[in-house]
Amino acid sequence: MKINLSHGSGGKASSELMQSIFGKHFSNPILDKMEDAAVLDIHGKIAFSTDSFVVTPVFFKGGDIGKLAVCGTVNDLLMMGAKPLYMTAAFILEEGLDIDDLERIVISMKNAAEEAGIKIVAGDTKVIEGKGGLFINTSGIGHIPEAFNVSASNCKPSDVLILSGNLGDHHACILSHRMQIENGIESDCAPLNTIIEAMFDAGIQVKTMRDVTRGGLGTILNELAEMSGCGIEIIEKDLPVNASVRGFCEILGLDPLYMGNEGKMIAIVSEKDADRALALIKETQYGKDAAIIGRAVSGHGVTMITPLGGKRTVDVLYGEGLPRIC
Amino acid sequence: MKINLSHGSGGKASSELMQSIFGKHFSNPILDKMEDAAVLDIHGKIAFSTDSFVVTPVFFKGGDIGKLAVCGTVNDLLMMGAKPLYMTAAFILEEGLDIDDLERIVISMKNAAEEAGIKIVAGDTKVIEGKGGLFINTSGIGHIPEAFNVSASNCKPSDVLILSGNLGDHHACILSHRMQIENGIESDCAPLNTIIEAMFDAGIQVKTMRDVTRGGLGTILNELAEMSGCGIEIIEKDLPVNASVRGFCEILGLDPLYMGNEGKMIAIVSEKDADRALALIKETQYGKDAAIIGRAVSGHGVTMITPLGGKRTVDVLYGEGLPRIC
Repeated sequence: MKINLSHGSGGKASSELMQSIFGKHFSNPILDKMEDAAVLDIHGKIAFSTDSFVVTPVFFKGGDIGKLAVCGTVNDLLMMGAKPLYMTAAFILEEGLDIDDLERIVISMKNAAEEAGIKIVAGDTKVIEGKGGLFINTSGIGHIPEAFNVSASNCKPSDVLILSGNLGDHHACILSHRMQIENGIESDCAPLNTIIEAMFDAGIQVKTMRDVTRGGLGTILNELAEMSGCGIEIIEKDLPVNASVRGFCEILGLDPLYMGNEGKMIAIVSEKDADRALALIKETQYGKDAAIIGRAVSGHGVTMITPLGGKRTVDVLYGEGLPRIC
Repeated sequence: MKINLSHGSGGKASSELMQSIFGKHFSNPILDKMEDAAVLDIHGKIAFSTDSFVVTPVFFKGGDIGKLAVCGTVNDLLMMGAKPLYMTAAFILEEGLDIDDLERIVISMKNAAEEAGIKIVAGDTKVIEGKGGLFINTSGIGHIPEAFNVSASNCKPSDVLILSGNLGDHHACILSHRMQIENGIESDCAPLNTIIEAMFDAGIQVKTMRDVTRGGLGTILNELAEMSGCGIEIIEKDLPVNASVRGFCEILGLDPLYMGNEGKMIAIVSEKDADRALALIKETQYGKDAAIIGRAVSGHGVTMITPLGGKRTVDVLYGEGLPRIC
């Protein structure tokens, strides 16, 4: 069965779709009330974020648009030091979307939300003309502990940058699908809870952290450098890149520095904590390939030390990169 | 200048768009931090809602997609008894969208948010291929006072239904634009704060309330009847409909009972409060045409008393109504 415009009318067909797909899989005591908004009890400092997802194809190796939509918002909350609590899910469905595909995506969201410990508490569905695709917006709320102090302004020269894993997997995976290139490259789409918990539970003082998504590491590091008032120096040979992704990039002339990821983060810690933080991250499911990639220095901007010892300025991404990767 | 895919890349063009349009007009101390999520202080019971907006055309008499996106989420929060506090705004822009049009929409959102007393604190932008249109998701948080008790389950037979104004204006306005019919019909798109404040400030015990949007009054009343465990009886001749909208509906064979509105609500109050509540609503800017339209009765379902004294069952909307009206 396919989605048609009546599923977005607010009438009978809308409410049947809501019950049979969203209500069925997302069911929880808050959502089940089906009111205009979820009612929650919150006390303290919270993080509030939003993200829309428009990736094509909607199914890809290692995930789908639903998993991406949950992990993306979970990771945004985590980066603010928040424990993800509640999330909304708003769907814009194109006419012709297969309802079985929609259900598969919804189940994938349910599983990702369970893994990340976040509850989907409110939603919305609209239907538009189109080619059978869909867009998902997720907005999330998380609780920030009072003692929490993570901010780019904490960084000082000599602080160490840890990258939680290989660069470019998600980007290379989506591009492979679009170019119909058969390879084993999987998206890294994942919630980063365990990596962060590992560091915080062990008492590591994380100075700042950022997920490395659209725009790639190069763009994110430039933002971090600007916000921290430090320069950043990274070592090219220490950047972790999976061998298949490296090969793929070489053939196509892509630079992993500007490729998007969906389950990677940078943590900046003081020099004395760096080795211990790295070891903790490497023990987690999504942090096996973590590496120390550089450090904060006095000055400004981002510089990369090449394998031959030269210095190259790393700028932000210009132009379009690959559109619709998230 | 037009939106192109580079505006969604996460690189330089994205950040320039963010600064020059969103940052410029939505500026406030929370948003200006431009972190992955907004950091807020919240204590108590909150309402959390989400809504996507896909209306075409994006500009219409009485409003535009931006005003609609703000009012829609504000009204969802208000209906839960919440004072709207914070909102996110996520844009999916189609390539070719005129940047001046985008700015006009953003300014309209800023004005609507100011009127409704809500702050836009976080956002997101994606760009997709398309025909130069856009979709907006807004998610909102509001604070629910401890003493607040508004729920369909409070309703009892003899309680009175007040409708805050004329039916069908928004729907008829959008349809007129699409059919290129020249008339004076304006969307009723508006935030409902003042209507609700008028009742609550005067100590009216509102038993339940709902905004009357997609699906129309017929669908909303059926939902209210089911959730309250009461029947609902409405008087056809007492339903307020603007003369131009009535004429428009008669020509096209449309039923105002199933037409969408964007600035109308139903309040259910006890019989003793009804006249006073009506008078208070009629004094507000968006409640001039309010009317008592019926009452809760024992039984179930929704019945309409016709001008000749007959009874007609009012069902929920079947089929598609008019798509993409919100």
